Amino acid sequence: MERVSVGILGCGNVGAALVQLIGRRGPEIAARTGLDLTVARVAVRSVARERSVHLPDGVLTHDAFDVVRDPGIDVVVEVIGGIEPARELIVTALNAGKPVVTANKELLANVGADLFAAAEGAGVDLLFEAAVGGGIPIIRPLRESLVGEKVDRVIGIVNGTTNYILTRMTEDGVTYQEALAEAQNLGYAERDPTADVEGYDAGAKAAIVATIAFGAKVVAGDVYHEGIAGITPADISYASRLGYVVKLLAIAEQEEGQIGTRVHPAMVPTDHPLASVRGSHNAIFVEGDAVGELMFYGRGAGGDPTASAVLGDLIDAAGNLRKGYSASLGSLAKATIRPIDEIQTAYYLNLEVIDQPGVLAAVAGVFGAHGVSIKAMEQEGLGDEARLIFITHLAREAAMQATLRDLRELDVVDRVGTLLRVIGEI
Amino acid sequence: MERVSVGILGCGNVGAALVQLIGRRGPEIAARTGLDLTVARVAVRSVARERSVHLPDGVLTHDAFDVVRDPGIDVVVEVIGGIEPARELIVTALNAGKPVVTANKELLANVGADLFAAAEGAGVDLLFEAAVGGGIPIIRPLRESLVGEKVDRVIGIVNGTTNYILTRMTEDGVTYQEALAEAQNLGYAERDPTADVEGYDAGAKAAIVATIAFGAKVVAGDVYHEGIAGITPADISYASRLGYVVKLLAIAEQEEGQIGTRVHPAMVPTDHPLASVRGSHNAIFVEGDAVGELMFYGRGAGGDPTASAVLGDLIDAAGNLRKGYSASLGSLAKATIRPIDEIQTAYYLNLEVIDQPGVLAAVAGVFGAHGVSIKAMEQEGLGDEARLIFITHLAREAAMQATLRDLRELDVVDRVGTLLRVIGEI
Repeated sequence: MERVSVGILGCGNVGAALVQLIGRRGPEIAARTGLDLTVARVAVRSVARERSVHLPDGVLTHDAFDVVRDPGIDVVVEVIGGIEPARELIVTALNAGKPVVTANKELLANVGADLFAAAEGAGVDLLFEAAVGGGIPIIRPLRESLVGEKVDRVIGIVNGTTNYILTRMTEDGVTYQEALAEAQNLGYAERDPTADVEGYDAGAKAAIVATIAFGAKVVAGDVYHEGIAGITPADISYASRLGYVVKLLAIAEQEEGQIGTRVHPAMVPTDHPLASVRGSHNAIFVEGDAVGELMFYGRGAGGDPTASAVLGDLIDAAGNLRKGYSASLGSLAKATIRPIDEIQTAYYLNLEVIDQPGVLAAVAGVFGAHGVSIKAMEQEGLGDEARLIFITHLAREAAMQATLRDLRELDVVDRVGTLLRVIGEI
Repeated sequence: MERVSVGILGCGNVGAALVQLIGRRGPEIAARTGLDLTVARVAVRSVARERSVHLPDGVLTHDAFDVVRDPGIDVVVEVIGGIEPARELIVTALNAGKPVVTANKELLANVGADLFAAAEGAGVDLLFEAAVGGGIPIIRPLRESLVGEKVDRVIGIVNGTTNYILTRMTEDGVTYQEALAEAQNLGYAERDPTADVEGYDAGAKAAIVATIAFGAKVVAGDVYHEGIAGITPADISYASRLGYVVKLLAIAEQEEGQIGTRVHPAMVPTDHPLASVRGSHNAIFVEGDAVGELMFYGRGAGGDPTASAVLGDLIDAAGNLRKGYSASLGSLAKATIRPIDEIQTAYYLNLEVIDQPGVLAAVAGVFGAHGVSIKAMEQEGLGDEARLIFITHLAREAAMQATLRDLRELDVVDRVGTLLRVIGEI
């Protein structure tokens, strides 16, 4: 049996769940792996604060740097979040020869490559399964199981807050504002929900997934994003009638040496595996050349699921440390990013129009002038309520945006409504 | 760059796909991992036979033992299937210090523990991701990501043939015989479909999953199984009306130190993630104490997906060999198996009865006498067509079987129809 002294930075939701989980599962882990995980030190902002977990005297400290520099600490877990001081703490730990496990998506999506290089240089592990999809094993399968696979595209529902909101809008017909307020009351959404609803959180995860899946450096700033605040109950109900559900997707794709990453609401066919991912669940759908389609589904957030992912990494890192081995991502070159204008996808568009003969001809003429072909059209409502709903064939984003600009100039168009990209269409 | 000489035993569907995949992905794998995978020798039954893959002269041989004993071979892939000579070949390779990758579920489900011990003794890897769920990463997540997790239950749709048949029956109303004939024409089912439709194939996979998830030795003979040949279109349509779909499930569960493994058709609520697994797809649903519910979905068979899983293992094994490291399952004690009589589940039962007053009272009396409570009952049809459809609350299998025995004795019961277990019910 080998004692492994664990230093944990942060004792919030995930940190506290991890302490409890190690307590609960310690004997079984020792029996199965020969590793006796001991929570030796926990760095917190306030040592005096009342906590849900009981820790022996002397374990809590307010000096996180003291933990990462402590020669008695074998492995460090970082669950404080944010970029600084997390970055400096992790680099200090790695340079001291300590493997690090982190759940910090913001950090990895911004300066991940520097951290991977620091780990590589020190010859120790930097593991981060919990940074994407909470408890869902997705980083390890991408890094290890699929390392030989040509991954073409990864499509994730990786933000539980927005998936909860869209599920409520879909299943119960509530408005975006009502669903958001409900999510805030339930603690699924923050008081300031920007990071979730505008797609920044999902974008950070898309950057991490793209980096691992394609072996090239992609950062949060490379990710195009649109949020869900503009989605109306009418969009949801048109989507449903046409055989789709609306989901906020994080997409990472690779084609001809270019990597595209984007987060936006999209229409997903109801028989697509991602369509049945409801409520605050997450799922990551992978399209590979040989393996075909894979999906990984589960709880994308919450203390216990996230702590479970951290624990898996912790056992791996401790085992590797004992064997003098470390996992490596190799050196990551900066990815060539495909601009959003160059993607090809199908689109849904909702137009408020004047209800008179010749309107469709005028509108269809604009689509045609930009080479965007229409796959399906439906008129909804009459008179002042008249709307035209379009689904296009595959088109280039630049052509679709040019179509929108010209449609706004048409006298017969009162308002250009929601534009949604459609996945799973040929 | 390090040259890794791969010896492949068998060049059927999976072996040929693997040879092609290594050819296609070789340069990228070399760039990412530093491993130059070279297919050095391939053992086949007939060297003269025409093949879809081109191999240099001297690579093909009909002597598989010559391959595993060849000092120039670094890693062995076994894709011939069956127990002998696969077992002896693998043990010979392991004893010669060669890591082995296998897709052989039958072998692992019967003598897996001996093979794991041989690998452990030799200090090299025995990896088998492809043995369960084809291309779906499930063995590695269970072994590594979830090694610290208390897994309570694993429920798999792990046989594509039966899932295809049940999907056709559900979506198109065809009979079992029609769907089977169609699956045979499409090459999804064998001429003799016994291994698939009676649940033997799924049972082998359940034994492997139980062994890995619970860290105890479970063999194919420990798995209780029932097939799908008795499922009627009427069962499917009652299930649908009650909000369920019928799936063939492989279940492995652990409670109070006992492990239960069983394969049988079951009713799955339509909003359960497993319900949306259609056609020949596979999925493995995992219930863990901290992680909650996870699902892994994808292609469970076929040359390319299976070869993709083998390739992931091959890269891992070759990398570990270079580092002098090997993954270990530890020593596996024989599991204490929970007899099928002791499981607790909810049930669906379909009874053909005489249509007269007092029948329900008589039937309900039998349920009550054995302590089985009825959650829902519906009468279908009238006169000679009269049937009673029951859904029970949780009950013990022994009590339900005793209920069936007594129901068969009742004069008012013409026939005791299909009994299905129901999952996802409280």
